[in-house]
Amino acid sequence: MDAMKWWGWGREDVAFTHEDKPGLRPFIQRALDVDVAQPGEPPVPFSTVDVPEPKVDATLLAALRAAAGVDHVSVDPHDRVVHARGKALRDLVRHRTGDVGRVPDVVVRPGDEAAVAGILRAALDADAVVIPFGGGTNISGSLEAPAVEERTIVSLDLGRLDRLLEIDAESRLARVQAGVFGPHLEEQLHAHGWTAGHFPDSFTHSTLGGWIATRSSGMQSDKYGDVADLTRAVRVVTPAGTLVTRPVPSTSTGPSVREMVLGSEGRLGIITEATIHVHALPAQRVILGYLLPDWPRALEAMRALAEAEVTPSVTRVSDAPETQFSFATRKAPTAFDQVKSRALQLALRRLGIDAEQMCLSFVGYEGSEERVAAQRRAVGRIVKEHGGLCIGASPGELYDQKKFDTPYIRDFLLDRGTLADVSETSAPWGALPRLYDNVMADARAAFARLGITGYIMCHLSHSYHSGACLYFTFAFKPSGAREPLEEYDVVKGAIQQAFVDNGATLSHHHAVGTEHAQWLEQDISAPGVAMVRALFDGVDPGGNLNPGKIVVRT
Amino acid sequence: MDAMKWWGWGREDVAFTHEDKPGLRPFIQRALDVDVAQPGEPPVPFSTVDVPEPKVDATLLAALRAAAGVDHVSVDPHDRVVHARGKALRDLVRHRTGDVGRVPDVVVRPGDEAAVAGILRAALDADAVVIPFGGGTNISGSLEAPAVEERTIVSLDLGRLDRLLEIDAESRLARVQAGVFGPHLEEQLHAHGWTAGHFPDSFTHSTLGGWIATRSSGMQSDKYGDVADLTRAVRVVTPAGTLVTRPVPSTSTGPSVREMVLGSEGRLGIITEATIHVHALPAQRVILGYLLPDWPRALEAMRALAEAEVTPSVTRVSDAPETQFSFATRKAPTAFDQVKSRALQLALRRLGIDAEQMCLSFVGYEGSEERVAAQRRAVGRIVKEHGGLCIGASPGELYDQKKFDTPYIRDFLLDRGTLADVSETSAPWGALPRLYDNVMADARAAFARLGITGYIMCHLSHSYHSGACLYFTFAFKPSGAREPLEEYDVVKGAIQQAFVDNGATLSHHHAVGTEHAQWLEQDISAPGVAMVRALFDGVDPGGNLNPGKIVVRT
Repeated sequence: MDAMKWWGWGREDVAFTHEDKPGLRPFIQRALDVDVAQPGEPPVPFSTVDVPEPKVDATLLAALRAAAGVDHVSVDPHDRVVHARGKALRDLVRHRTGDVGRVPDVVVRPGDEAAVAGILRAALDADAVVIPFGGGTNISGSLEAPAVEERTIVSLDLGRLDRLLEIDAESRLARVQAGVFGPHLEEQLHAHGWTAGHFPDSFTHSTLGGWIATRSSGMQSDKYGDVADLTRAVRVVTPAGTLVTRPVPSTSTGPSVREMVLGSEGRLGIITEATIHVHALPAQRVILGYLLPDWPRALEAMRALAEAEVTPSVTRVSDAPETQFSFATRKAPTAFDQVKSRALQLALRRLGIDAEQMCLSFVGYEGSEERVAAQRRAVGRIVKEHGGLCIGASPGELYDQKKFDTPYIRDFLLDRGTLADVSETSAPWGALPRLYDNVMADARAAFARLGITGYIMCHLSHSYHSGACLYFTFAFKPSGAREPLEEYDVVKGAIQQAFVDNGATLSHHHAVGTEHAQWLEQDISAPGVAMVRALFDGVDPGGNLNPGKIVVRT
Repeated sequence: MDAMKWWGWGREDVAFTHEDKPGLRPFIQRALDVDVAQPGEPPVPFSTVDVPEPKVDATLLAALRAAAGVDHVSVDPHDRVVHARGKALRDLVRHRTGDVGRVPDVVVRPGDEAAVAGILRAALDADAVVIPFGGGTNISGSLEAPAVEERTIVSLDLGRLDRLLEIDAESRLARVQAGVFGPHLEEQLHAHGWTAGHFPDSFTHSTLGGWIATRSSGMQSDKYGDVADLTRAVRVVTPAGTLVTRPVPSTSTGPSVREMVLGSEGRLGIITEATIHVHALPAQRVILGYLLPDWPRALEAMRALAEAEVTPSVTRVSDAPETQFSFATRKAPTAFDQVKSRALQLALRRLGIDAEQMCLSFVGYEGSEERVAAQRRAVGRIVKEHGGLCIGASPGELYDQKKFDTPYIRDFLLDRGTLADVSETSAPWGALPRLYDNVMADARAAFARLGITGYIMCHLSHSYHSGACLYFTFAFKPSGAREPLEEYDVVKGAIQQAFVDNGATLSHHHAVGTEHAQWLEQDISAPGVAMVRALFDGVDPGGNLNPGKIVVRT
């Protein structure tokens, strides 16, 4: 797996473009008052970036080389800058201008768990800081060292721990090294007829260990579960030795140590291995598109689906603003598309569906032909009861092909001086309508307060028995009157505050990091924060493990 | 809810008897070399029990009375003895002889959360110990104070916090006070058309808070989940104030505080309230009996069921020894029973099923008629593929009616000087055959070493994606050569050791307490124990909250 671009998302040779999407330029012009056809402003060249000299003494360097091998210890400036931050909007904005912050002093790539233990021991002996690094895609600030950190910072890159170690076919469990990237994991599992079924947006550039450390959730979590569900056991190198839990399906061993490691963002140790659920590759797999008449009925249809216990692999529905954005990103229609489009217009008119209000939904089905057929019937019935209709498999196929490309849009917009980001949450079904209304109102009030033209849109995804995830995307061109990130903080802060003010959580699957830490106490209460802090302080009394994340040390 | 018998399980007016079960006396004679028709030896009368004077100073007593109300603070000897221990075999054996141990000094029954907070504050001010008490059914020693405890011991009985506070019908969530007993919870939910679906063996005498504090699992966990799955939020009075988590379906707020409270056995605070999943009462509910030809095929059939993702509400299968015990507990057959029995004999002969090897299974179905029918077809097909047959609904109905009476058998046997107890675990599907064989062999080796006639039997229950629970029941008459509990420790210890030696966990749903604490490090590794200890020590630096449970304080 190649390293990501130092200044943005993904690979240098992949980029988002508006040129093959005739509706997009006018859409963005209307929505954000930005003309994307105007030439953009690229990031500064790397050669102009001022990367500080690494601060690492000879004893530590020798110990790291002894642990990982000489070839796997790097003080190269580019390598260190790539490992300095994740891909939060704040990270991209700063990196693009050459502000790379407190970059790690050394990047180490251990080849096995013993090397990880050796690195941690060496770092603790030197009172250095260790920040584990998977794919570097975190968007909550989980990877950046505190600006004031004076100790040596070691970025521990797990990329060489990328093997599938064992499959227990009877138990449908796979033992996998934590540094494996999504595609490489699936490739190794597919060779034996299995899938992990975990497909977060970051899939192509993120790792199993990163998913566990941040409580990730994949697009097909409705069927396969969140990473917390599918991770049965972990191995974690901690200051007290290697934590090893057992891959049992359920256990009564006191407070769950497995659930302490999930979401721990490197603060308890370095995750080296996990035992995860695998599933036989499904006989059939299809994602169907649906249109629902408006957001209230769209929400209600998703709730009815959860209540009916149909359990498709994907349930997702966009609000009207996101539906309009989706339609604006379509390529130029063929003659056949135009025929289909006219037929659809007729069907919508017959059902009284207003194009300004309608909501695009994707529902995914996996399994035996019989199971898929039964689920499709049940979903079709519920969609119909809520005034909607099925629009077939082709929009779903397109969604399925393009689902991992969305993060590239941020770089496309940043090139044009426009900020775009996401905030997501979860709440009980009953709380979702009011939560949605208040988040939209508060974000728009923030746009107005700043005097900017902003856009915000949302989809529901990840359905559960008692609630679901709402995923908001917002964008605006800074006014120029203030620092762009200052205006970003106003908008992002308004959205996050609306989450916790309306019974929702600070994040459904993007972790706490530094971006969300200020809302943790409002979410889990002060005694909850005290419990997390007690755990961190007890395991890592010197504060050497990724300090400053989740809770600030007192 | 009446208090339990001070010396045994359940109510004084309920008892198990062999008299209406013609096969049982000869069965027990053969299995344990015990004649249950011989007169038994009852527990000592309470009047002869030497209950130490309560050790509680006037300041603390006044503060407890101020917090809970004068009528709800008790130093009555009987009350204190009932609160001294749970219902582990060790507890029953000792209580029956009048050895009641370090009984709590005072029993307090708060009426609301503010009173709980007042009690905790008063206890901490006085450096007293607080042990929360739900139904008192724990069988792992979670309720007993350390014998050497010199501080005042407050038993905090949650029984008055027994109300359903709110139902969010849209989200299918109920907010409930933690002291509610199983039947009273279901009664309050039924009144609105809901069920929690949580039915542990202890159901009639245990509480929601107790289930959460011990990571309980109910008989219908296959459909409704373990208590860890169905508990969406908790309120817990801790030394740092009241912990309040949010009832969101999934969240990414770092290490899960909710999962720290689950299984915490009072070591982090007092659980006062929970928000739990509820489900509409099913249109149909049926439990069918099946016979499978032998244990290997029985295990394989249950695994195939999990793999087929049929998700019935109950999947359970007994090994041959437990199947024979079940048949021995049947009442005298009617003429109609005899006809059915002959038909069954013929069917078994036709399938080549050996009565000595066959395994009795129960599979439960709940939901719409259509769903139940589809599940029954799928299960029928799998049972047939594994050489078994369906024996209809009447054995399942009997199981369903009698499922909560099993614990009374222990008192019946103790009256006759015979010890019986349970040990349960979970492991991946692939590990279960060897685990079973080794547990059976090690238990029988322990019987042989002690020179006693013992019996051990097992069932599989609680199926998951990647594994299941194995639940062992064992019984023997002590040799007389040693203390009965010394021989019990040899047998119980052999079984528990076989669990951890064969990749299984120390308990699937009976908690750690003091009985299983010695296996915790082998189960979750030393760094895992260190993490749990860091949490407890940080939250409860004085060691006032149910000390000595799960991990011993260093």
